[in-house]
Amino acid sequence: MNLTELFAKPDPAFAAAVTRLLERFHRTDDSEAPYRRDRFCQQLDDPCMPENGMDPQAYLTRLEQLIPGVSHLASRHYMGHMTAPLPAFTGELARLLVMLNQNPMKMESSRLLSFLEREVLAKLHRLVYQAPDDFYQSQMHAKDAALGVMTSGGTIANVTALWLARNHAVGDNLFHLVEQGYRGAVILGSRLMHYSFDKGMDLLGLGAASVRRLETDADNRLSLPALEAAIAECRAQRIKVIAIIGVAGSTDFGSVDPLPELAAIARREGIHFHVDAAWGGPTLFSPRYQPLLAGIAQADTVTLDGHKQLLIPLGTGMLLCKRPDLVMAVKREAPYAIRASSFDQGRFTLEGTRPANALYLDAAFQLLGEAGYRTLIEANYDKARRMAALIDADPAFELMSAPVMNLLSYRCLPPHLQGQPLDEAANVQINAFNVALQKAQRAEGHSFVSRTQRTLPPYGDQPLVLLRAVLLNPAIEESDIQALLADQIRLGRTIAAELFAGH
Amino acid sequence: MNLTELFAKPDPAFAAAVTRLLERFHRTDDSEAPYRRDRFCQQLDDPCMPENGMDPQAYLTRLEQLIPGVSHLASRHYMGHMTAPLPAFTGELARLLVMLNQNPMKMESSRLLSFLEREVLAKLHRLVYQAPDDFYQSQMHAKDAALGVMTSGGTIANVTALWLARNHAVGDNLFHLVEQGYRGAVILGSRLMHYSFDKGMDLLGLGAASVRRLETDADNRLSLPALEAAIAECRAQRIKVIAIIGVAGSTDFGSVDPLPELAAIARREGIHFHVDAAWGGPTLFSPRYQPLLAGIAQADTVTLDGHKQLLIPLGTGMLLCKRPDLVMAVKREAPYAIRASSFDQGRFTLEGTRPANALYLDAAFQLLGEAGYRTLIEANYDKARRMAALIDADPAFELMSAPVMNLLSYRCLPPHLQGQPLDEAANVQINAFNVALQKAQRAEGHSFVSRTQRTLPPYGDQPLVLLRAVLLNPAIEESDIQALLADQIRLGRTIAAELFAGH
Repeated sequence: MNLTELFAKPDPAFAAAVTRLLERFHRTDDSEAPYRRDRFCQQLDDPCMPENGMDPQAYLTRLEQLIPGVSHLASRHYMGHMTAPLPAFTGELARLLVMLNQNPMKMESSRLLSFLEREVLAKLHRLVYQAPDDFYQSQMHAKDAALGVMTSGGTIANVTALWLARNHAVGDNLFHLVEQGYRGAVILGSRLMHYSFDKGMDLLGLGAASVRRLETDADNRLSLPALEAAIAECRAQRIKVIAIIGVAGSTDFGSVDPLPELAAIARREGIHFHVDAAWGGPTLFSPRYQPLLAGIAQADTVTLDGHKQLLIPLGTGMLLCKRPDLVMAVKREAPYAIRASSFDQGRFTLEGTRPANALYLDAAFQLLGEAGYRTLIEANYDKARRMAALIDADPAFELMSAPVMNLLSYRCLPPHLQGQPLDEAANVQINAFNVALQKAQRAEGHSFVSRTQRTLPPYGDQPLVLLRAVLLNPAIEESDIQALLADQIRLGRTIAAELFAGH
Repeated sequence: MNLTELFAKPDPAFAAAVTRLLERFHRTDDSEAPYRRDRFCQQLDDPCMPENGMDPQAYLTRLEQLIPGVSHLASRHYMGHMTAPLPAFTGELARLLVMLNQNPMKMESSRLLSFLEREVLAKLHRLVYQAPDDFYQSQMHAKDAALGVMTSGGTIANVTALWLARNHAVGDNLFHLVEQGYRGAVILGSRLMHYSFDKGMDLLGLGAASVRRLETDADNRLSLPALEAAIAECRAQRIKVIAIIGVAGSTDFGSVDPLPELAAIARREGIHFHVDAAWGGPTLFSPRYQPLLAGIAQADTVTLDGHKQLLIPLGTGMLLCKRPDLVMAVKREAPYAIRASSFDQGRFTLEGTRPANALYLDAAFQLLGEAGYRTLIEANYDKARRMAALIDADPAFELMSAPVMNLLSYRCLPPHLQGQPLDEAANVQINAFNVALQKAQRAEGHSFVSRTQRTLPPYGDQPLVLLRAVLLNPAIEESDIQALLADQIRLGRTIAAELFAGH
C-alpha cells in the first residue's frame, strides 16, 4: 500500500463498502447472529502485525467477515442494553469530527470547539439547574469557571464527582485526613448505586468497601431512616462522609431516590450531594415525566451520559457543577500543554487529550431540539408501560417493579410454577430457569434482553435473577415486544422440560 | 424536523457538505484562521436549546460558520501539537464504528469486537514485550487475564498504571497503609514526567505533591544518583514508593530515561516499574531508532497513546501489562453489566461503557503494516534532525536540545542578543520575546509551533520559554520548515523593535 495514497483523498470503494455494511446492520431483524465464541477466538488470534499493509479491498473483506459478529442493536428485537441506534446524521458528523481531530483539552488545539464545548455544557447546566440568564452570560466563557466537564463517559463523570467532593472536603492527601483524627471516609447511597462508585472509592484510596450501600424502600428508593442512621454512625466512629449519592434512574429499575430529602440532609450536614442521572437526566425534557427528578437542581454535581438517552455515540459523559468554581479543587496546569490563565478546559478534566465530542451534542440539540427529545423520551417511557402491562397480564411472567422510566425488570416463570406461591426453593428454580432462558435467547439470536441479579422486597435477602429490558430504540413497536415475549415463552417451554423433567 | 427521517437513511446533501468541509480543511495552507476569541464567544453564547429541531440544511450553515474556526492541523505549516491529520480511510471507519455503537465493556454488547480488542492488545504487547508465541496463544483470550486495557487516552492509561501499582502494593484503602506505619506514599521519576502523574497521585489520595520529580542529566534523562538518593530517603522516612516511572519520549524533548538501569533498580527494590511511552512507543517499529527504547520490555506496565504516533483518532490509549494477571488488583463486577467469569473487559478498565476503538487500531495495523509505521516514523525522526540542523546553523535561533525523536525545543533570539553570551537578564528578555513571538505567529495564522517553559542545564534554575515543534504530519517538507522559521525571523524583527526599542 502506497502511504501517500493512504493519506490522500478517501477511496470511494471503501466508502461504498462502509455504506453497504451499515445498510446490512440497519436492515437486520435478528438481535444478533448465533453466538460463536470459539469461532471469534479462532478468527482473531494473531499476535503478529503484518509486515506490509494490505490492500484496502482486502481489508474490506476482513471487515465483511467481522461485522456480522457484532451486536445488532439497530434491530427492533434488541432490547437488552443501554445503547441504541443513532440518528442517521451522526455517521457523517463522526467522519467530520474524527478527521478534524481537534483536542479541546487546550484552546490552542481546538480553538472554536473549546468555546462550543462551554456552550453545550451551559445548555445542559440550564436544563438541570435553570439558573437565570445573566448567570450563564457571566459564567459560560469565564476563565476560572466551569459549568461542568466533559468526560469519556458516566463512570469518569461519577469518579470526577467523588474526586471534586473529596478534594473540596479534605484535600488530595489522605495522610492529612488521618492526622485530623479520621479513621476512614465513605460515601452513602442506596444499594442500587452504580458500580462506578466502587471503582471511584477504590481509585481515591478510600477503599471500594467504603461505598455504604443502604437499604431501599418498596419502590427501590434509598431509605431515609437508613441514611440518617448511617450518618450518625459515621459521626460516632470518626468516619468522614465524602458525599451522599442520589440515583436518578437506577440501572435495573429506573427508580429515583428521594432527591429533595437527600438534598436537605446533605445541606444540613455540609456534605457534597451528587446525583447520578446518567440514565434519567434527559427525563427533564418531558414536562409529563419531569416530576420524577424533582430536587435534582439542589445537587452540587450531576452526572449525565451522552450515549444513553441523549443519543450521541459512545464515549461522552458530562459532570455538571452547580457552582462554577467547584472545579478549582482539582485545577492543574502543565508548561507545554495547559496554562493556568487560559480557556484550556484541560485544567479541570480528569482526562487529558480527548476528542471534541461536544460537536455531537451540539448537532443533536440543534437537529432534535427539546421537542425531539421530549417526543422520544415520552414515546419510550409510554412503551415501557405497555410492555409492563403485557408482562403483568401473562401468568408466564412476573413483573418485578412498576415502570418508572424505560427500564423494566421481570422474570419468566416455568409452567409448573405459574400461579403458585413462590418460596425460596421455587426462586432457586426460577433463577436457574431465567439464566438458561436468557442464554438460549441470546444464542438463538432472534431477540435479546439482558440479565441482572438483585434482591427485592417481597423475597427478602434471596438474590433473584431478573430479565431486564431497555426500551430505547425508537423503532420498537408493540408487535416487536410481543414477538420478544413470545420467543421467551417458546424457549421457556423447552428449557423447563429439560431443567425440571421430574416436575 | 421529522424524527423518523432523522433516524432513517443518511441525507446525501449532509454527506456531500461534510465532504466539502473536509476538503477545505485539507486544502488549507495556513495553520489557522486569525484568532478571534471575542467572535468565538459571541458566536457561541446561547444557553438555551432550541425548542424545535432545525432543518439539516440550516445546521450545515452553522457548521460552515464554525469549522473554519478550528486548528488547521492538516496544514503543512502546523507543527505545534501532538496530533496530526489521519489516513483518509479513518473517516469512513469512524462512520462505521460510530453507527455500529458497540460497547466492548461487555462481551454481550460488542461480541466479536471484544475479541478484536484482545487481539489488538496482543499485537501491541508483542511489539513491546516480544514474548514467545505460545504465551500469546494461551493468554490472548484467557478469561482472567489481560495483556492490557484500552483507555480513553494516555492520561487514563498512566492513572491506571498507578492504580494497579498501588493496589498491588498496598491495596485500595490508605487507612490500612497508615496502620502499617507508613507516613506517606510517592512515585519517583524525572522532572519531565507528564502532568497526568500529578493528577493520578491526587486522584489516588496520595497527593499531587507526592510526585517526586527528580533531577535529569545533561541529556534530559533521569539521574540515577538522584533516584538512588530518593529511594534511600523514602526508606528512612517510612514512605512507600508505589512506582518508579520511566519516560520514553518526554513531551518537550523526546528524551528517554535510562530504562535498563531503572528496571534493575525497581527489581532490586521490589517496586513497580512503569514506562510512559505515550509518545515514544511506536519508535519500536524502526530498527534504526528502536535502540532508544532498550529496556522497555522490562517494564511492568507501559502506556501507549493511539492518537499520537499510532495515527488513530483522539480518544484511545492503552496500558500494556507484562504479566496478564496484574489486572486482578482492580477486578470488579456488577450484576447487570459485567460478570466475574466472562470475557467482559469492563472487569479491568477504569472506564465503563466506551467505544470499540480497537477497530481503528486493527485497520491501521492491517493497512499500514509494520513497514508503513516504520517508514513514517523514520521520515519524521529524520526530518526533525534536518530541522535541528537548520536551527543550529542560524544565529537567529538557539537549539535547546539535540533531536532524539521528532520533538524539538528551540528558541528565537532577538537581533541584539544573537551571538552574545546569555546571562540571566538576557534570558528574561528572550523569554518575553518568545512568548510574544509565539502569540504573534498564532494570531497571524500562517504557521504554528507551540510553547513550553522548562529549566535547562546551561542556564541553571532559570525558567526558559521554549518553542516546541512536533514533526508528525507526513506531508511536511523541508521547504515548509524553512517557511515556518522564516515567519519567525520576520515576525521576530517587528517584535524586537517593539520590545527592545532602547537597544
